Amino acid sequence: MVGAETILRTLMNSGVDVCFANPGTSEMQFVAAVDRVPGMRPVLGLFEGVVAGAADGYARMADKPAATLFHLGPGLANGLANLHNAMRARSPIVNLVGDHATYHRPYASPLASDVAAYARPVSGWLRDNAEGRMLGADTRAAIAAAWEPPGQIATLLVPADCSWNPGGEPGAAVRPPQPRAVASEALEQVIKAVRAGERCLFLINGRSLREDGLHLASRLAEHTGIRVMADTFTARMERGAGLPSLERFPRYPEQAVSLLQGFDHLFMIETVPPVAFFAYPDQPSWLTPEHCALHTLAAPGEDAVGALQDLCEALDVPVDAGKPEALVVPEPGTGALTPDSIARTVAAVMPEGAIVAEEAITSRGSLPAMTVGCPRHSWMSLTGGALGQSLSAGAGAAIACPDRPVICLQADGAGMYSPQALWTMVREGLNVTVLIYANRSYKILHNEWSRLNLGEVGDSARKLLDIGNPDLDWSHLARGMGMPASQVTDAESLHQELRRALSEPGPHLIEAIM
Amino acid sequence: MVGAETILRTLMNSGVDVCFANPGTSEMQFVAAVDRVPGMRPVLGLFEGVVAGAADGYARMADKPAATLFHLGPGLANGLANLHNAMRARSPIVNLVGDHATYHRPYASPLASDVAAYARPVSGWLRDNAEGRMLGADTRAAIAAAWEPPGQIATLLVPADCSWNPGGEPGAAVRPPQPRAVASEALEQVIKAVRAGERCLFLINGRSLREDGLHLASRLAEHTGIRVMADTFTARMERGAGLPSLERFPRYPEQAVSLLQGFDHLFMIETVPPVAFFAYPDQPSWLTPEHCALHTLAAPGEDAVGALQDLCEALDVPVDAGKPEALVVPEPGTGALTPDSIARTVAAVMPEGAIVAEEAITSRGSLPAMTVGCPRHSWMSLTGGALGQSLSAGAGAAIACPDRPVICLQADGAGMYSPQALWTMVREGLNVTVLIYANRSYKILHNEWSRLNLGEVGDSARKLLDIGNPDLDWSHLARGMGMPASQVTDAESLHQELRRALSEPGPHLIEAIM
Repeated sequence: MVGAETILRTLMNSGVDVCFANPGTSEMQFVAAVDRVPGMRPVLGLFEGVVAGAADGYARMADKPAATLFHLGPGLANGLANLHNAMRARSPIVNLVGDHATYHRPYASPLASDVAAYARPVSGWLRDNAEGRMLGADTRAAIAAAWEPPGQIATLLVPADCSWNPGGEPGAAVRPPQPRAVASEALEQVIKAVRAGERCLFLINGRSLREDGLHLASRLAEHTGIRVMADTFTARMERGAGLPSLERFPRYPEQAVSLLQGFDHLFMIETVPPVAFFAYPDQPSWLTPEHCALHTLAAPGEDAVGALQDLCEALDVPVDAGKPEALVVPEPGTGALTPDSIARTVAAVMPEGAIVAEEAITSRGSLPAMTVGCPRHSWMSLTGGALGQSLSAGAGAAIACPDRPVICLQADGAGMYSPQALWTMVREGLNVTVLIYANRSYKILHNEWSRLNLGEVGDSARKLLDIGNPDLDWSHLARGMGMPASQVTDAESLHQELRRALSEPGPHLIEAIM
Repeated sequence: MVGAETILRTLMNSGVDVCFANPGTSEMQFVAAVDRVPGMRPVLGLFEGVVAGAADGYARMADKPAATLFHLGPGLANGLANLHNAMRARSPIVNLVGDHATYHRPYASPLASDVAAYARPVSGWLRDNAEGRMLGADTRAAIAAAWEPPGQIATLLVPADCSWNPGGEPGAAVRPPQPRAVASEALEQVIKAVRAGERCLFLINGRSLREDGLHLASRLAEHTGIRVMADTFTARMERGAGLPSLERFPRYPEQAVSLLQGFDHLFMIETVPPVAFFAYPDQPSWLTPEHCALHTLAAPGEDAVGALQDLCEALDVPVDAGKPEALVVPEPGTGALTPDSIARTVAAVMPEGAIVAEEAITSRGSLPAMTVGCPRHSWMSLTGGALGQSLSAGAGAAIACPDRPVICLQADGAGMYSPQALWTMVREGLNVTVLIYANRSYKILHNEWSRLNLGEVGDSARKLLDIGNPDLDWSHLARGMGMPASQVTDAESLHQELRRALSEPGPHLIEAIM
C-alpha cells in the first residue's frame, strides 16, 4: 500500500475515523486512499479555516482527535487562526499537511514554502516524514502525541513522494490515554490553607468542567468556603439543570485585579495563571497581586477530578451533589431584538443535550444567567481569540455528536471570517441551528475604542469599525451555500423560527437583525 | 503624536496612501490615527485574505506599495496565503502587523503567538519595532525595502505600546526606486549565441511584460530568430491590439522538457529557472536539459528593458514595433456555456483599458487566443498557486486604477477561499465585473487525478473532489454582500449581462452555470 493509505489505516486503528480536509494535488494520494479505507469519513471544507475549526469542535465533543488534511504551506496558513484557537482549547488534532515531494522541495516552485515554519507555532508535536516506510510509526506517534492529556496539535508533514511510495505496515492502535495523577504536595497546600481559614479561589478549566468535576468543585465551595470560578474562556463546559454552575473569571484586567485582591491563594486547576487578554496603558498584564499565592493544583493534563475527589475526602466534605441548578426555563423574549430578548428566547427553546458554540460579544450579558437552568447542555467558547470559529466548531461538534442538536451563536462580523462552514453543514446534513447576531458592527472594537479613551469616532475610523454599508445579508449567504434561512426583527419571530429550526432535521440559519 | 500616527504620516510622505486593513484591539491606535491623517484611504476587508490579495492587486497596477494592517498572529495568518501569492508576484507591500505590547508578549494570553514566525516565510524584510520613537525610521526603511525592485513584502511588527506611545517625527519620503543596470557580460552571452546561430529562448517576467519590453522582445524575435516566451504565471502582462503578444511557457513538466530540448540557450529575463509546479512520479522537477545553457540576462529587479534595448542596438535590430497584434474582436459565443463560448463572449465585450484578474482553470483553453486582439488590457494571473486571489486582487486593482474597468474571471471552487472580497468591492463602489465559472467541481483536482493515473473516482474520493451537493449559488452569495448579481446558462445571456455589468457603475457578479 502507498504511504497515504498507511496513514489512513493507522488512524483507523486508533479510532481516528474523521478527516476534515481541503486537499490539493500533493494530497491526491490521500483522496484516492480514502476510497480504499472503509469507515474513514472525509469531510470537505471549502476553506481551511473550516477544516481546522471543525476539527477543534469535534475534539472538544468527541474527546478524541480527528485528522485534518491541508495542502502545502498556504493551505495550512489558511487554517492557522483556527488551529491557534484549537491549541488554546487544548484540542487533540492529528494535523496532516501535504508538502512537495522531498526532491522537489529545494526548487522555488510557485507553491513552495517553509511548511514547518508555519506549523511550528501551533504544534505541540511536529515531525517531517522523509521516508514513506516510517509513516505507520510516525502517524502512530502523532496520534499519541495529540491525544496525550491535555491534548495538543500534532503535525505530520507528508511530502508527496512519501504518500505515493510504499508506506509499509500501518501503526498499531493507540489506547485512549489517562491523565497523570496529581502530586500529593499540591493537595496539601489546599488543605493547609482551608484549615487555616485563608481565602482560597479555585480557577478551573479543562476536564473538571464536566459533570464529575462540577459536582466536586461545588461540594468544596459549599462546605469549605473555597470560591470556585471557571476560566473566562473554556473549550467546553457542561451546564444546565442538575449541574452546579460556575461563575466566570472576569474578562477585563481591572475586574480581575479587584477580584483577586480578596484572596490569599489562587489554585489553578487545569489552567495557567490569569493574565490580561490585551494590554492597556496603565493596566497590568499580570493580574495576581503579590499577597495572593499562586499554586498549581492540577496542571493541564493532570487528573484534576481525582484531585478534587481526594480533596473532598481529606477535608471531610459531605457526599452530596453540591449546589445543582434547578430547572428554570425563562419565558421567551418579546418585542425588539436586544441582547436580553435574544438571550431569553434562546434559553426558552434550548433543547436537552444541546451543544452551544458561542462567538458573539453581543450575546453575553444576560445569556449565561438565562441559560443556567435550561436542560443540560454543553457550551463551547472561543478560546484563542481568533475570530471566525463557532460555525466551524459547531459543524465539527455535530459530526462528533450526531444525536445532539447544535446551536451556533455567531456575531455577524466574526462569522465573516469563515462563513464557508455553512456549506459543510449542508453537505453533511448536520443538525445545526445558526443564530446570527446581526448588529452590522464590530461591536468588540467599539468597546475597545471606548476602553482606550480615543474620543469621537471620525469618518475614516468608522470605515474600519462598522461593517454596514453594505449591510451583510446572512440569509442570502446561507442560501448561497444551500442552507434554508430566515431573517427576524422581533423576539416573537425569533422564537418561532428557532423552534422550527430545532424541530426540522438538517441545518438552518436565522439572522436576528438588531 | 503617537506611534501609529507617525507610521501613517511616514507612509503618506512616500505616497503610500492606501491601507488595506482588518484591525483589532492592538491596532486601535491606527484606526484612531486614520482620522488625523488626511488623504490616507482605509479599506476594510472582512477577512484578511482580502486585505492581502487586494494589496497585491493594487501593487501590480499602481507600481507602488499599499500598506496592509493585520491583527496579531492569527490575523496575519489569515492573510498568509495571499501574501504568498504577492511574494511570488514580487509585489511591494508595506505589511504592518500589530502585536501585543512589548511587556505583554511574554504572557500566554489567548491571542499571543510568535508573529515573526508567521511573517518570516513571506517577508523579504522583517523588523520588530521595540521603541515607538524609531517608527519613523523603521517605517521609512520598510517602504524602501518593499519598493526596491523587483518588489517584496516588508513586514513591520508594531507592538501596541509602540503605537500608543509617542512616535517621534515621521520618516522622510522614499523616492520611487530605479531598477539596477544589467551587467554587460550578460548581454555578451546573447550576442555571441545569436551570432553563432545557436537556438535561443528568452523566458520573460516582470516589468518587461509592459509595452516597451514587449516591443523590444518582439523586435528581437522577429529579426534574430530568438524565441520569446512569457513565464507560465505572471503578475501582470500588457496585452491586446497594438502590442506584440507572447507565448506562455508550458505549465506541465513533460511539455516544458520537450520544448527546451530544442534550445541551446535559455536566457532568463526578470525570472528564475523554470521548474515543475508540482512533482509527479517519473517526472523531473528541473526542466532544463543538460545541453541547454541557462543564463541570467536580467535578474528580477534589474533593468531588463534597458538590456533589451541595448541588445537590439548591438544586434542591429531594425527600429520597428516588432509584431503587434491587429485589432481582432471575436463574435460573442452562442448556445451552451463552455470554456470556449465563454472565452468568445468575454473577448467580445472586453473594454479598452480593462484589467483582467484571472483564476479559473476552466477559463484557459481558448481564452488567451480569443483575447489577444482585443483592445489593450492588463492581465493578472495567480502567481503563487494559493487559491482565492483574483477577487481580492481585482478589488485592489480597481482601487489603484479607478478609471479602468476590472474583470475578475473566477472559478467557483477557488473563489470560495475568499468570497468576502465582494463586500469590499461594494463598500468601495469599485467598477468590477465578476464572472464566476460555476462548474461545481475542483476541476484542477480532477485534472491532477488523471495525471496521477489514480483510476476511477470512488464515492469517498468524490466527496473531496466535487463541490456540488449542495451547489453553490454565487448570485445569492453576492447579494448577501450587497452586490447585484445574475445567473446565466447560455452564452447569449452571458453576453447581455456582461454588457450590462460593464456599462453600469459599481460592481456586478455574473454566475455562468456550466
